[in-house]
Amino acid sequence: MSGLDAHDVEEAAANLQPVAVRTPALTALSLDQAAGWPVVCKAENLQRTGSFKFRGAYHHASTLTSRERARGLVGASSGNHAQALALAARLLEARATVVIPADAPAPKVEGVRALGGNVVTYRRGIDNRDALVAEIPERDGLAVIPSANSRRIMAGAGTAALELLTDHPEIETLVVPVGGGGLAAGSAVIAKHLNPGIRVFGVEPEQGADTLLSLRCGQRIALPDAPSTIADGLGHTSPAPLTWAVNSRHLDGVVTVTDQNITAAMAFAFRHLKIVVEPSGACALTAILSGLVPHESGTIGVVISGGGVDLPTFHRLITTTPHRKEPAHA
Amino acid sequence: MSGLDAHDVEEAAANLQPVAVRTPALTALSLDQAAGWPVVCKAENLQRTGSFKFRGAYHHASTLTSRERARGLVGASSGNHAQALALAARLLEARATVVIPADAPAPKVEGVRALGGNVVTYRRGIDNRDALVAEIPERDGLAVIPSANSRRIMAGAGTAALELLTDHPEIETLVVPVGGGGLAAGSAVIAKHLNPGIRVFGVEPEQGADTLLSLRCGQRIALPDAPSTIADGLGHTSPAPLTWAVNSRHLDGVVTVTDQNITAAMAFAFRHLKIVVEPSGACALTAILSGLVPHESGTIGVVISGGGVDLPTFHRLITTTPHRKEPAHA
Repeated sequence: MSGLDAHDVEEAAANLQPVAVRTPALTALSLDQAAGWPVVCKAENLQRTGSFKFRGAYHHASTLTSRERARGLVGASSGNHAQALALAARLLEARATVVIPADAPAPKVEGVRALGGNVVTYRRGIDNRDALVAEIPERDGLAVIPSANSRRIMAGAGTAALELLTDHPEIETLVVPVGGGGLAAGSAVIAKHLNPGIRVFGVEPEQGADTLLSLRCGQRIALPDAPSTIADGLGHTSPAPLTWAVNSRHLDGVVTVTDQNITAAMAFAFRHLKIVVEPSGACALTAILSGLVPHESGTIGVVISGGGVDLPTFHRLITTTPHRKEPAHA
Repeated sequence: MSGLDAHDVEEAAANLQPVAVRTPALTALSLDQAAGWPVVCKAENLQRTGSFKFRGAYHHASTLTSRERARGLVGASSGNHAQALALAARLLEARATVVIPADAPAPKVEGVRALGGNVVTYRRGIDNRDALVAEIPERDGLAVIPSANSRRIMAGAGTAALELLTDHPEIETLVVPVGGGGLAAGSAVIAKHLNPGIRVFGVEPEQGADTLLSLRCGQRIALPDAPSTIADGLGHTSPAPLTWAVNSRHLDGVVTVTDQNITAAMAFAFRHLKIVVEPSGACALTAILSGLVPHESGTIGVVISGGGVDLPTFHRLITTTPHRKEPAHA
């Protein structure tokens, strides 16, 4: 499989147009004041199933042959990819099987089931998830829909940036979270195609900086331990091969954020943007509010990537994270 | 001043186009399942300053003469109209004075000040607010920007419905909250113009059903006491004269919702739509989730009108309202 190009993203956009939400680009004077620059937020937490993941999952699944789809789809996720896959399958009249850890939060499992998805659980730390996911397609003939490591997943994810930059061509710096790296890869490719002068930065949690360290080393590295961060969707130990191939060429840099600053950004988004953002989804906004992203002029674009957090967890994170910096602007 | 017509709303839309957010029309399978019908939510909590109020305040203020504006603007509000007026004034390079009760929540007062507004406080129950508001323009020559009782305020408010029905002409029933009545009036006029067969329903809190009772009596009535409801933005005791003239002709009915069901709708919106909605802003959604609005076929449009609620209050309302009905769908 060759690299990702802008045409892949444009093709995905045409494919997704009838089914995905064209999410809003939110602005607020209070945000500009807090960031020190004009900021536009692409609110992918308002995408179907609450994250940008729907774009890639649907695009990948819809480009399978009808015969492949008829045998069913399978993917592994304890988070947003699970519901995205379940909805994509439902819309395409296919069956989805989602491999989820047995201790995943009940609402996420219920969410998959409510969309008609078939849930297979495994015991975290006991069963080998990857072996399980590899075994199912082999045994049952299902097509695997990866969460990031696929050209079509990257292309689908990049359509959010395509919409944002089409609506706001004045953006000179684009900031996106990096987990599996699909969103960063798709975003960077389409952004540089639309505006060769744009700078694209990834954001990782401090404890899960596998892409940053890989960039420093000039090659993919793996973290020795699973990251401990509230940004669970970005807790990868190593960049995926296909996303790394793109991100190592196209990203202008990666910055890291702390859990403490992530919760401050979640509180800011609740108060000033009136949206619910999960920790992983708030990382790019966090980097901007913390002044971590190099930026010299013009507008900053930020992708808010997901809203998969329940109220008790949200409230606990905001109220118990120590030394939270309360945003000063209304 | 004569009645409101569709041309007023279209004119307001053209005027607001460069400054207001075209808020998204949100959909979710879980919402359709819970409501029993396809539902589209116009998310005006994502409007600038967090509510639809910006539309009317800006439209009214911008149609004043530059000489009138130069003398400054004044309005009374403890809620969303205050910040809307402050931002409208700022954008129009005018000074805003907002009359706010001394015991109003600090974030709201700060919000007005952060936007450059001048805050005048009064003692609720001791000072006469209306006399105070009447005195300021007379003394200082300021132009009053009412929160609802103005043709241009109603027209501005109606532009949210115009956008929603342009994007979703399949809507056969439109549901909007009724406080001062400006949103309901503007929405009903433009909706019936675009689709004479559409039905438009207002929603009031059970304890503040002044418009419902007025409709039943065939004339404006006043409630003897200030309503006690968490939907503080809809706690009016009597319909305003201009909005009543429109709503009494154009609304197909008004239904009422309980505080308990409002909090369930707020929790639903947090969980499934990933948005922050204040009690008043959730009333139309509440009516739909509670099955209170007569509807026989097609899609329902709902206006989510505001998000002016802080996290401690939001959390307290959701967790302490008794007998809350937890939505069953994911």
